[in-house]
Amino acid sequence: MAGAYSEAIQDLIDALGRLPGVGPKSAQRIAFHLLKVDVDEANRLARAIVRAKERVRFCSVCFNLGEHELCEICSDVKRDDHVICVVEEPRDVVAIERTHEFRGRYHVLQGAIDHLQGVGPDQLRIRELIARVTAGGITEVIICTNPNLEGEATALYLSKVLDVPGVTISRLSSGLPVGGDLEYADELTLGRALEGRRVITGD
Amino acid sequence: MAGAYSEAIQDLIDALGRLPGVGPKSAQRIAFHLLKVDVDEANRLARAIVRAKERVRFCSVCFNLGEHELCEICSDVKRDDHVICVVEEPRDVVAIERTHEFRGRYHVLQGAIDHLQGVGPDQLRIRELIARVTAGGITEVIICTNPNLEGEATALYLSKVLDVPGVTISRLSSGLPVGGDLEYADELTLGRALEGRRVITGD
Repeated sequence: MAGAYSEAIQDLIDALGRLPGVGPKSAQRIAFHLLKVDVDEANRLARAIVRAKERVRFCSVCFNLGEHELCEICSDVKRDDHVICVVEEPRDVVAIERTHEFRGRYHVLQGAIDHLQGVGPDQLRIRELIARVTAGGITEVIICTNPNLEGEATALYLSKVLDVPGVTISRLSSGLPVGGDLEYADELTLGRALEGRRVITGD
Repeated sequence: MAGAYSEAIQDLIDALGRLPGVGPKSAQRIAFHLLKVDVDEANRLARAIVRAKERVRFCSVCFNLGEHELCEICSDVKRDDHVICVVEEPRDVVAIERTHEFRGRYHVLQGAIDHLQGVGPDQLRIRELIARVTAGGITEVIICTNPNLEGEATALYLSKVLDVPGVTISRLSSGLPVGGDLEYADELTLGRALEGRRVITGD
């Protein structure tokens, strides 16, 4: 038994190891860190988890995270009701908000279509999005899923099911990152940048 | 404020971000994971933290982790009292126990000398180790700190302060990992392997 940890330690390592991106070695390292720091610091994490689970919930309209029935953005009367920006996760809402370029509403799918992982349209908040768009009043849906395989598949699927008269469906542009170096861009990104080139002068 | 998370979410991200090896992006990812999974799964981690902090403590003799005054190894009467293996962390005890090659006692320093991080001999359990060795009955101290800068500095320091008559101080050998490839070994490791070569036949 000395070649193993005591039950309380092993339980902690196991619970940590189930977190995304935390492998067995990291789980051990984090567990020992928590055992080493003072009890207030460790319990602060435990309390933050319990409190977040108690207080945080998904917005009943857009499925963003918030602490009320409606999230902060859905309850903001000053925002534009005609445009919906569709994202995969709540963190994408925060990323887009930080650009200060968008003043419309959001819809959080809570994932992307990924058949290998068993995530189809029914596992996402797509039905609710269709209901919002068909209810009227929407002029544009900007699909801001990630520019990867799953995000593209989701965008393609959405562009089909959201084919409602009077509603423009758009997609975030792909291309070189600002400040990036052409030399280091992968060929897919560079190809996309070429394909999506903008006319600067003339038609 | 929409470009930021609500207080409960931010608190959770902050608490996660203080864990070792968890950067701001991972902290966000883990927080959203915890908000997404069901409440039992999330609270299981919270409970494991609280429980481990309540039950787990450091052994009063060797400073290994355990759930009693003496750890499992220190309270095992069948182990050899004459040899002490000195390691940096409790995880190293588990690693050495898994080899089934050592039947003596341990001493966990709870770190290594690292002046850049403000860790000197006084921050480690070195005083307690000296007390154990000078108390008598010990014939060998095997220094098993890591073969890196901090571990080597600690080993050097220990070899000086543990200069007690009748006590052999030894160090884990460095060399090529078993199953490793000579071609891929870094020059330091290969140099150590040469330096520490063992005579197979002849003297």
